[in-house]
Amino acid sequence: MIEVGIVGGSGYGAVELIRLLAHHPSVKIKYIFSHSKAGELVSGTFPHLNHLPYRFESLENNNITCDVVFFATPSNISKHLAPKFLAQNIKVIDLSGDFRLKDRAVYEQFYGETAAPQSALDSAQYSIAEWSTIDASNTQLIANPGCFPTATLLALHPLVDSQIIHNNSIIIDAKTGVSGAGRSLAQHVHYSEMNENFSAYAIGKHKHKPEIEQYLTQLADEKIAVTFTPHLVPMTRGILSTIYVQLKEHTTTESLHAQFQRYYADAPFVRIRDIGEFPKTKEVAGSNFCDIGVYVNEENNQAIIVSVIDNLVKGASGQAIQNLNKLFGLDSATGLNQLPVYP
Amino acid sequence: MIEVGIVGGSGYGAVELIRLLAHHPSVKIKYIFSHSKAGELVSGTFPHLNHLPYRFESLENNNITCDVVFFATPSNISKHLAPKFLAQNIKVIDLSGDFRLKDRAVYEQFYGETAAPQSALDSAQYSIAEWSTIDASNTQLIANPGCFPTATLLALHPLVDSQIIHNNSIIIDAKTGVSGAGRSLAQHVHYSEMNENFSAYAIGKHKHKPEIEQYLTQLADEKIAVTFTPHLVPMTRGILSTIYVQLKEHTTTESLHAQFQRYYADAPFVRIRDIGEFPKTKEVAGSNFCDIGVYVNEENNQAIIVSVIDNLVKGASGQAIQNLNKLFGLDSATGLNQLPVYP
Amino acid sequence: MIEVGIVGGSGYGAVELIRLLAHHPSVKIKYIFSHSKAGELVSGTFPHLNHLPYRFESLENNNITCDVVFFATPSNISKHLAPKFLAQNIKVIDLSGDFRLKDRAVYEQFYGETAAPQSALDSAQYSIAEWSTIDASNTQLIANPGCFPTATLLALHPLVDSQIIHNNSIIIDAKTGVSGAGRSLAQHVHYSEMNENFSAYAIGKHKHKPEIEQYLTQLADEKIAVTFTPHLVPMTRGILSTIYVQLKEHTTTESLHAQFQRYYADAPFVRIRDIGEFPKTKEVAGSNFCDIGVYVNEENNQAIIVSVIDNLVKGASGQAIQNLNKLFGLDSATGLNQLPVYP
Amino acid sequence: MIEVGIVGGSGYGAVELIRLLAHHPSVKIKYIFSHSKAGELVSGTFPHLNHLPYRFESLENNNITCDVVFFATPSNISKHLAPKFLAQNIKVIDLSGDFRLKDRAVYEQFYGETAAPQSALDSAQYSIAEWSTIDASNTQLIANPGCFPTATLLALHPLVDSQIIHNNSIIIDAKTGVSGAGRSLAQHVHYSEMNENFSAYAIGKHKHKPEIEQYLTQLADEKIAVTFTPHLVPMTRGILSTIYVQLKEHTTTESLHAQFQRYYADAPFVRIRDIGEFPKTKEVAGSNFCDIGVYVNEENNQAIIVSVIDNLVKGASGQAIQNLNKLFGLDSATGLNQLPVYP
Repeated sequence: MIEVGIVGGSGYGAVELIRLLAHHPSVKIKYIFSHSKAGELVSGTFPHLNHLPYRFESLENNNITCDVVFFATPSNISKHLAPKFLAQNIKVIDLSGDFRLKDRAVYEQFYGETAAPQSALDSAQYSIAEWSTIDASNTQLIANPGCFPTATLLALHPLVDSQIIHNNSIIIDAKTGVSGAGRSLAQHVHYSEMNENFSAYAIGKHKHKPEIEQYLTQLADEKIAVTFTPHLVPMTRGILSTIYVQLKEHTTTESLHAQFQRYYADAPFVRIRDIGEFPKTKEVAGSNFCDIGVYVNEENNQAIIVSVIDNLVKGASGQAIQNLNKLFGLDSATGLNQLPVYP
Repeated sequence: MIEVGIVGGSGYGAVELIRLLAHHPSVKIKYIFSHSKAGELVSGTFPHLNHLPYRFESLENNNITCDVVFFATPSNISKHLAPKFLAQNIKVIDLSGDFRLKDRAVYEQFYGETAAPQSALDSAQYSIAEWSTIDASNTQLIANPGCFPTATLLALHPLVDSQIIHNNSIIIDAKTGVSGAGRSLAQHVHYSEMNENFSAYAIGKHKHKPEIEQYLTQLADEKIAVTFTPHLVPMTRGILSTIYVQLKEHTTTESLHAQFQRYYADAPFVRIRDIGEFPKTKEVAGSNFCDIGVYVNEENNQAIIVSVIDNLVKGASGQAIQNLNKLFGLDSATGLNQLPVYP
Repeated sequence: MIEVGIVGGSGYGAVELIRLLAHHPSVKIKYIFSHSKAGELVSGTFPHLNHLPYRFESLENNNITCDVVFFATPSNISKHLAPKFLAQNIKVIDLSGDFRLKDRAVYEQFYGETAAPQSALDSAQYSIAEWSTIDASNTQLIANPGCFPTATLLALHPLVDSQIIHNNSIIIDAKTGVSGAGRSLAQHVHYSEMNENFSAYAIGKHKHKPEIEQYLTQLADEKIAVTFTPHLVPMTRGILSTIYVQLKEHTTTESLHAQFQRYYADAPFVRIRDIGEFPKTKEVAGSNFCDIGVYVNEENNQAIIVSVIDNLVKGASGQAIQNLNKLFGLDSATGLNQLPVYP
Repeated sequence: MIEVGIVGGSGYGAVELIRLLAHHPSVKIKYIFSHSKAGELVSGTFPHLNHLPYRFESLENNNITCDVVFFATPSNISKHLAPKFLAQNIKVIDLSGDFRLKDRAVYEQFYGETAAPQSALDSAQYSIAEWSTIDASNTQLIANPGCFPTATLLALHPLVDSQIIHNNSIIIDAKTGVSGAGRSLAQHVHYSEMNENFSAYAIGKHKHKPEIEQYLTQLADEKIAVTFTPHLVPMTRGILSTIYVQLKEHTTTESLHAQFQRYYADAPFVRIRDIGEFPKTKEVAGSNFCDIGVYVNEENNQAIIVSVIDNLVKGASGQAIQNLNKLFGLDSATGLNQLPVYP
């Protein structure tokens, strides 16, 4: 069994890892770390786990032995703590943003904090699980992608990779459920303020904008800038990304649809929806699926792509388990076969 | 014009007073007080008031002149600050719990704080607006009822007053929207935790239990204890109170219904619903109505009463304005004729 | 493998059976029946199952061979169709109300339809899975309990069985999410009407009232009538039942709590919550758990019990699978180990 | 008093007209028409109006005398019924789409129905109330704009009118609450399906696309086509429109913001939000406001405009009353001073 530890045990990422790993045939949860709650029962924070005996472990524990540690933490934590685990030959899968951006200056501009050392950033592998190749023997540190980038890049990868769009035309209008903001308290996520309310936020300055640009720039081998506008939806889970691009040449919906089907023919978690059908967030809730719908306006050569994920699964903990599977040489879908919870 | 000040300007009670008083033909809002935000624009905290020029006023202001001050504050504030206004012959309508309970020991048990002086408690008039008589010339301080007590007492008053129920049989199963918890941050009102979640809370120890008991005890002229179980509903506004009582004698739904109609024949804000029809919270949202449905199980002489209000209007700011109207000799419905917002 | 068929394939019960059975190690879904959609892809109705090749099967199919058929249908269907399967030695687990009530007159009063033949009712086993004994070799037809009765009877069984309460004192104030109303269209479940709305309904005449009474009457061996008031909560999943009973003798919360723990010591899906803690619906969402909190008001010997379930899992499809497990001699928890989905 | 009739009395548009007109000092509601419910109490359909004595009137009534009739109906009704009123010198304000599009072929393509006669279309005045000029003496028929067009055109009018954008670059990513779909039943607006769900719909073929294009084309005096993608948000009220345009020349956020302020300096219902601030739907809920936020990405000369309205007020009934005010020579804000309902 692969023994795992989870840092950030009192957050939504951790609790979702626990839910999903409970079905993983090759994994055993050994530690759930929490700095502030060390010694307490996990069920004290999360009563839905009432029947489980887990206690939060202190990160000061000096006898930690396990195979891999997940960081399900806000930014600015893993860059300080991951080196300790790596030094003990414990692999790290980081769900935070600390190791995603290779350019320290960009990190510091968008995160407002000092970046991790360049050597650490260089060693980290950013892994959209459908498109990354992981050398299990040489990889120690995985930077698990952000939620918006996951939904968006799975839609954009085929378009940029096949060189059929004007790379400077990308507009991403993204919408997320509230759990994407984490479990910390803030006025705007107070139920009475958030309920029956829809808003745009962080226009032009969201942390996921440079993450999307870095991936696409590397894929295209040319500088790509995108327009990225996140919105907050009064619901708990789900991301829907509506993406507008200009096609270089006249294309039909049918041919673009066929291309998406080819790109994801072997991807168990990406479902290209039939022509004329667009996915809804609830159709992937609780599951690791990313569903994609495709449309071309032939009058002006514009394509509109709609992709949805559960931000806590495919957008965080589910993809982290996919990456664990790849890191340990398992089938990438192991333990992730939950069907969506509907309704 | 009656000039008013509002203390607790950054809370939901205050902002609802502002909304309702905007339609009041005889009132002018002169001050909106906030200790922590003095000098700031009110619209900085409440962007929906973006077009209004109000600024938060400091309570340290020594030149306050107005006719009445509303306290839309948590408990433990008005009992310290109201005396200053009263000393200047400014009347006070307190929406908090500080002056509701006449028995200091009971207050201290349920609120966990030192009670106001007995003389202040004695001078305060608790006013369910449909049933109180206010001597405009002699009343300086009104204790505006709590939200649960308002919904509940409007349903129970006819039953206890007419002496047709066993007074020790009262069970109140009450449900409130989340705005009743105020605007302060807490884990359980985080959207992601509160959404799609229903719960009971404060069983046996809610502050509104002794408030209900005090009113009924005084009405019946005998000690009445009630069972009161509040629940939290994933919605912003609304209270529904389901009340179970044992009738002393065989009674029909028809006769009980007729009795409720008689009791509220002249009450513009209490609507007794037709037999077989029970009110929903949304049917009073945004308005000062209290709707009541009545049912008798003739097999066991049990009556079930369902009453609904908007907790922020009839359960707080709307009733406070009714009380202002009574305090200043106006028709009690003045400025409160908003229809429910539906859907 | 146990081969199963599901009747009522276009409803929520069926789709939840599909979700849960996907993890069952000993079950294979062979048929998903739908009268109106025979031949269509299941994913046409339920796009969240987009990757699955199931097609709706006609019930006219004369070559059906399988081990057991679930009816996840409205009432008035299984009583007509179950006999055909039973005649072919296919066991039936009925999630509808058709075989729950043994007294035809009571069924006809509350359901407004002709009851199943008395012989069929007599042969059906009503099975609250925690308390039923199923003789796998002789049982052909299981009447799976209703959602409200499941949440309520798990809370009441220890109280009535231990003879510590006045059996005529039971008041059940129950609250359900909207999925309990099924997938059919109706004005009151239109999103715009149901959202931000809380209501009581079917006061005194809900179908689940006689179901609860029948179980308790049999358990107590004396006629028990209950007060049962259902409410509709603006959320999709979850039931919370608040139950008020009069204890015969002075009892402490501690002793009542200990008694509940004893009753459910070996029940994998019933979690008795710590004293002072009451369960929330979201803490069991998506899982087969029933969580119960206990409180005694020692001043008047009243106990208040709060129980929660996911109405579609423990209240329908999950318990149906528990019953399947019992019917086929498997461990009753097989395939039902999903953790709650939180948040 | 202006006497009005309302056709479509059992829909959300009508009930919102009733709510708003209750505060209008110069209007008296004389008729509420409903074909299917003639003779019934309005409160039978809308219990929140329980205290009002209105009855639905038959459209067959041949003695109708009033000053103006609102059509708050689905499409394909007013084009048949309006002529009868117009012939009696009763003015008509149509909230449906029947008279908005001047080009019959376009109407028939997007609505799938036969268009009104060209003469009727020519006589109808399409009126975004902030920008239309209504000749009270000569105008008989007003086509009240759609909800998406209202939110979108108030944002786009200054950009197109001032000729600072590339007119072929407009992308509108619009989001609406569920009440926009009306009160009719449909599977996708069933609470259990709509709750916790976000989706795009009608991509490339929504009826409001040609309406937006017609207005902009006329304003620019050149053919303008737009990309318009509507989305459905799990909330009852509110529209947020996120609009992307390419500026012809380098522009700062400050200068664009100043321009919007100039355009709407005298518009009582349009609030241009401060730089860096973007409106949320709840900040206009229940009111006639349209709030607009402005942002320029100076790196690529792209402007992003965010506008919000309450779809049932400014997007339907509120604007209809503004148009009534203009039609009868009143101040355009008469009776529309309700503050937003918050929270």
